[in-house]
Amino acid sequence: MSQQHTLAIGLEGIAVAETDLSLVDGLNGLLVYRGHWARDLAINHTFEEVAHLLWYGHLPNEQELAELKGKLNENRELPDHVKRILDLIPAEVDMMSVLRTGVSALGSADYSWPPTLDQVISLTAKMPTIVAYRYARLNGREPQEPNPALDHTANYLYMLKGQEPNPAHVRALDAYLILTQEHGMNASTFSGRVVSSTQSDLISSITAAIGALKGPLHGGAPSEVTEMIEAIGTKENAEPWMRAKLEKGERLMGFGHRVYKTVDPRATALRVVASQLSGDDPWFDLATHVEQVGLKLLEEYKPGRKLNTNVEFFAAAVMRAVGLDDTLFTPTFAVSRVVGWSAHILEQAKNNRIIRPQSNYTGPMPK
Amino acid sequence: MSQQHTLAIGLEGIAVAETDLSLVDGLNGLLVYRGHWARDLAINHTFEEVAHLLWYGHLPNEQELAELKGKLNENRELPDHVKRILDLIPAEVDMMSVLRTGVSALGSADYSWPPTLDQVISLTAKMPTIVAYRYARLNGREPQEPNPALDHTANYLYMLKGQEPNPAHVRALDAYLILTQEHGMNASTFSGRVVSSTQSDLISSITAAIGALKGPLHGGAPSEVTEMIEAIGTKENAEPWMRAKLEKGERLMGFGHRVYKTVDPRATALRVVASQLSGDDPWFDLATHVEQVGLKLLEEYKPGRKLNTNVEFFAAAVMRAVGLDDTLFTPTFAVSRVVGWSAHILEQAKNNRIIRPQSNYTGPMPK
Repeated sequence: MSQQHTLAIGLEGIAVAETDLSLVDGLNGLLVYRGHWARDLAINHTFEEVAHLLWYGHLPNEQELAELKGKLNENRELPDHVKRILDLIPAEVDMMSVLRTGVSALGSADYSWPPTLDQVISLTAKMPTIVAYRYARLNGREPQEPNPALDHTANYLYMLKGQEPNPAHVRALDAYLILTQEHGMNASTFSGRVVSSTQSDLISSITAAIGALKGPLHGGAPSEVTEMIEAIGTKENAEPWMRAKLEKGERLMGFGHRVYKTVDPRATALRVVASQLSGDDPWFDLATHVEQVGLKLLEEYKPGRKLNTNVEFFAAAVMRAVGLDDTLFTPTFAVSRVVGWSAHILEQAKNNRIIRPQSNYTGPMPK
Repeated sequence: MSQQHTLAIGLEGIAVAETDLSLVDGLNGLLVYRGHWARDLAINHTFEEVAHLLWYGHLPNEQELAELKGKLNENRELPDHVKRILDLIPAEVDMMSVLRTGVSALGSADYSWPPTLDQVISLTAKMPTIVAYRYARLNGREPQEPNPALDHTANYLYMLKGQEPNPAHVRALDAYLILTQEHGMNASTFSGRVVSSTQSDLISSITAAIGALKGPLHGGAPSEVTEMIEAIGTKENAEPWMRAKLEKGERLMGFGHRVYKTVDPRATALRVVASQLSGDDPWFDLATHVEQVGLKLLEEYKPGRKLNTNVEFFAAAVMRAVGLDDTLFTPTFAVSRVVGWSAHILEQAKNNRIIRPQSNYTGPMPK
């Protein structure tokens, strides 16, 4: 009796949008942001420059960059009622739930549909402040107000730690944040676009995206990599430790990726950044050594499988080296990915069409 | 260089799931919930019975119904910190944003993935309380605690108004809520399923769905129907008022539907309920008269177009008759639709697969 539609559970291989924002080419190990290699952007540019590229379509000149930095700076502070709301959330609630509620609490007519660049900048500026505010409270510190002398990534570290961050740490975290700003049509970006396609507001869309990123099938579980590197502990212990794992048929964490079948270009870029900074920090040093030994052993134990280092390996190394604990990993991912989410939402709004698929009914008909 | 995927912007005509929950057959004007006509359920059953059908797969026997009512009653109250969070949201923030933040603030380990029936009942019980709590505060009343002697719909009206509701109003609103509990794979249900497919928690999924329903392309704008009926004002004025509109080539509100090309079965059911109650309330009486005149005039001015009454017409009439103002329309829709959203999320979790489509890159390649 009823019409049956083409079934595409999981929507694998179906493109729901054309986008100028990024190309994720897993077969060839390529990641492009608007005509630039993400790898090069991470090595040679800053968070604000790449956000400008994604939002405005081109890398900024000096004046444009100054303007963007100025707008971010003006918008970092949280409204007082949002701070008080964060204070009311019980201490045992996880940081992603706190971030979702904090962002939702920003909702007001200021963020009405259609989304604007000013809205997007304002929200991107505030997300690190939410995470850092909560983190300070959980650690019994008075939250640090944003410091207008510092750029976006430096401000985040400054507010998290309550002190001026080490420039090497800022550089490494900046590279990581650039490499996670955007990654095509994943589940969180898609959920944000679905919500936005109803002409709902930016806050509703980003709240949805945070909720999707919270899921372990999307946001990942970096603790496994940090646990491995911590268990290894010293350079000398790397080979015997990993060899023992492989002998028992167990997996090494941080190698191999679902999409990137050859090289994960984000890992390539983070390796460069990490190697430049390894003299400054024993953790980078240990991580790059563990990587080299891991790759050698995987070639020995699983020849031809091409199990390359993935972004989680270096992400975990960077996070640990700059002193961010596991509870901050996915929230920090959200702090950077909001740039891509909001770029997609701006793109969706330009030529909007509601995203409304079908389902096929498999239940009985009434008698 | 890069792979191009089948493009399906808007996902029209693509089924993203098989579902036992509902059949929406627009061509034939049919709506089925798990083997039952939604129309019959609305006329002959209650909110709790139909929620049981959608969640558990069958209409409840006496004991099952008593158990479900008991669980809903035990779960209506809001945690104290959620009440205080609602109090902190500025008065000018719209009710859908308040509901999104209130639901998000419920987030805790109690709602971790996988979703359970207990989670779903707990959240469904609390959503009316959030709306009513806020509504009371906005109107300068002390919020009413839930009344364990009353069922779900009656409790909602009781808390909204601060007094025992008229049984005719409860019956009419109950029928409307039943008819909006579920409606196949729309944008809000879909966004909830996308978020849940990452193994994120129930609160994240429902927060996303609320955000999608907030969009005017989805949640609708009922005020146009109430404005029309208010402008008409009396039965005598119905024909001259509507005739004048049609003579000017303007539309009558509440007729015609995007999906239902013949009859909107939800309107059919609400017409029956409204006609049974019209003696009790002048608004039902006026609305049913306006409908009859509207249908007659549309047949005269647009013969063959089959512009039947849609659910918004009677929804607006019911909402106005039971004394819920326009600010409560979409939030009340959410209060009922959470049943369908959560039934879909439970169904998704049974055989979960991440929903992760592709996009086609249309930007330039790096030089």
